[in-house]
Amino acid sequence: MTLKIAVLPGDGIGTEIVTQAIAVLDALSLPLEYGHAPVGGAAYEAHGHPLPESTLEVCRKADAILFGAVGDWKYDSLERKLRPEQAILGLRKQFGLFANFRPAILYPELANASSLKPEVVAGLDILIIRELTGDIYFGQPRGRRESPDGEFAGAPEAFDTMRYSRPEVERIAHVAFGAARKRGKRLTSVDKANVLETFQFWKDIMIEVSAQYPDVALDHMYVDNAAMQLVKAPKKFDVIVTGNMFGDILSDEAAMLTGSIGMLPSASLNARNFGLYEPSHGSAPDIAGKGVANPLATILSAAMMLRYTFNRPDAADTIESAVKSVLAQGLRTADIFEAGTTKVGTAEMGAAVVSAIKAG
Amino acid sequence: MTLKIAVLPGDGIGTEIVTQAIAVLDALSLPLEYGHAPVGGAAYEAHGHPLPESTLEVCRKADAILFGAVGDWKYDSLERKLRPEQAILGLRKQFGLFANFRPAILYPELANASSLKPEVVAGLDILIIRELTGDIYFGQPRGRRESPDGEFAGAPEAFDTMRYSRPEVERIAHVAFGAARKRGKRLTSVDKANVLETFQFWKDIMIEVSAQYPDVALDHMYVDNAAMQLVKAPKKFDVIVTGNMFGDILSDEAAMLTGSIGMLPSASLNARNFGLYEPSHGSAPDIAGKGVANPLATILSAAMMLRYTFNRPDAADTIESAVKSVLAQGLRTADIFEAGTTKVGTAEMGAAVVSAIKAG
Ligand SMILES: CC(C)[C@H](C(=O)O)[C@@H](O)C(=O)O
Ligand SMILES: CC(C)[C@H](C(=O)O)[C@@H](O)C(=O)O
Repeated sequence: MTLKIAVLPGDGIGTEIVTQAIAVLDALSLPLEYGHAPVGGAAYEAHGHPLPESTLEVCRKADAILFGAVGDWKYDSLERKLRPEQAILGLRKQFGLFANFRPAILYPELANASSLKPEVVAGLDILIIRELTGDIYFGQPRGRRESPDGEFAGAPEAFDTMRYSRPEVERIAHVAFGAARKRGKRLTSVDKANVLETFQFWKDIMIEVSAQYPDVALDHMYVDNAAMQLVKAPKKFDVIVTGNMFGDILSDEAAMLTGSIGMLPSASLNARNFGLYEPSHGSAPDIAGKGVANPLATILSAAMMLRYTFNRPDAADTIESAVKSVLAQGLRTADIFEAGTTKVGTAEMGAAVVSAIKAG
Repeated sequence: MTLKIAVLPGDGIGTEIVTQAIAVLDALSLPLEYGHAPVGGAAYEAHGHPLPESTLEVCRKADAILFGAVGDWKYDSLERKLRPEQAILGLRKQFGLFANFRPAILYPELANASSLKPEVVAGLDILIIRELTGDIYFGQPRGRRESPDGEFAGAPEAFDTMRYSRPEVERIAHVAFGAARKRGKRLTSVDKANVLETFQFWKDIMIEVSAQYPDVALDHMYVDNAAMQLVKAPKKFDVIVTGNMFGDILSDEAAMLTGSIGMLPSASLNARNFGLYEPSHGSAPDIAGKGVANPLATILSAAMMLRYTFNRPDAADTIESAVKSVLAQGLRTADIFEAGTTKVGTAEMGAAVVSAIKAG
């Protein structure tokens, strides 16, 4: 059976990093088929829209999407619905990619890259599971209007709606408990139940679902406290599950704890394991085209694709071991370089992973 | 003119720390008058409500509120409107305390307390200004219902409303630009304009108001990026202004960067400089009554009260210098203790500040 991958490089460093991930996939001798399509600013330039129908069509024919990155300051003045980031939101919604997996792992070789003390982060390995198609990201109604009530009734105001339905919370709960079961068996649900109706509901459902996972220890933490505990003692966490908005903030905070966001992959899955795989970092327009970007997060995203969508944990392991081996060899792109290691460019790093696969 | 202070010790360590702050205020020989009242769990025990009318009455007669802390696990099973935290939300709303000042300062003597590398945080001095009476905290409508539309129409759901009106954003903008003008003249407005209508509106108004403060450099940052930059390079910030929900998360994250949240005061002001002053930390029921809590955040909150509500910067300076001097003497409560310093209890720490004031 051929595994079909929609390749959406996007903007900035997107093309460079995705090229290396494909080279790595190709080194595995799997039956892969690629369909390429523009997304983000690149798609806006070519088709007048960041997520054109032709790109969606390529994705619909595939089993998974390998996504680079989107965005560039030069599109800031476009109206919101034409801006590059809207492509990500559109893909999430179109394909129902409700479960976002964001590991925050600190490789021993890169412990110095963190702004935190080594003893606080050495060996960090947490998984943040962010709900990705609900919450205030997509809730209707939203917009501008005359304020209907309150102290400033009659004044212009803007508003959005946070909301979660029971089935939305249940399905992300099952994903999270399932993931925790395969790891350290501890799940922290992050909410703001002391203030928000939406998150009291969320918490109630998490507790309900936990009855089906007696082997997983569930605890609850307010989002403000979670933002603190991530700084204070991040290794105390195993799996964190939270809503779309809080997950946006906490997953980036957790990624930055490692100091090496250029190493962190992500997966966004729907109910039938169709997935979008992308690095956790952005499009970095300032270094685009220079051949210096770190391709490892994208390469590790391809590994996640093999694991989650294609059910090939063996092939995923091969890539992940190869990445560890290039780090052990001392190869570093500029973002993770330090004295005593060897600085390499994007293509060299990709080639080194390919060699490690072939050697392994 | 007598300065009238409503003293609301609250729960947990509240009474111990507030007692020390009052001792320090008394050492200044100012014309002060105190009215005491219970709040939070203590008020629920005494009057069946966390913010009873009798407590509000004491606050109404005062010019400022000195607040300890509220909350205890034992109230977790109460219905939400009776829980201790509701008292804080009620006071903010009743007195229109829309401007929350949360400094995150790392005292040189306490640099080791941080989980971040010393070079990343040494000398940290940032001010977070959080809007405190709008946003999704108070927006109506909110509640539970049958989902009106979308994939799960008909299913049970919970929802909340995020909203900001123009006058609400304008007034916090003026507070923030004014504060930045008195400091490093740099203001970062944190939003999520790429996703939320409310925060595109917020950003537009920040830009408009900035025209009146040509001496202050305004920049904009998405909340997810702000959560990262606080970990990566917190010293790059001067003043941050943001909404109620994002401010809840980021101010706690920033506080924890210092590693010494027991040192951090806060002020919540309304349009006529009536203010609620409280430590940034919580009620710590686990150490309540043991005489080991750090009273310095509360003492420094009293200093903020003198500065912002009573317009006595001289007296505020006196307290702040006294706190620096006890740190320089090597006195430490358990939360900030390290080898080579002298461990003291709550009362000893308060007494040391009083002595430093009398000596100075
Ligand atoms: C680009 C933006 C819309 C997006 C989000 O907020 O979800 C991004 O920050 C992310 O986390 O993937
Ligand atoms: C107790 C809670 C309602 C409150 C808030 O969310 O504002 C607290 O976290 C704070 O920051 O003062």
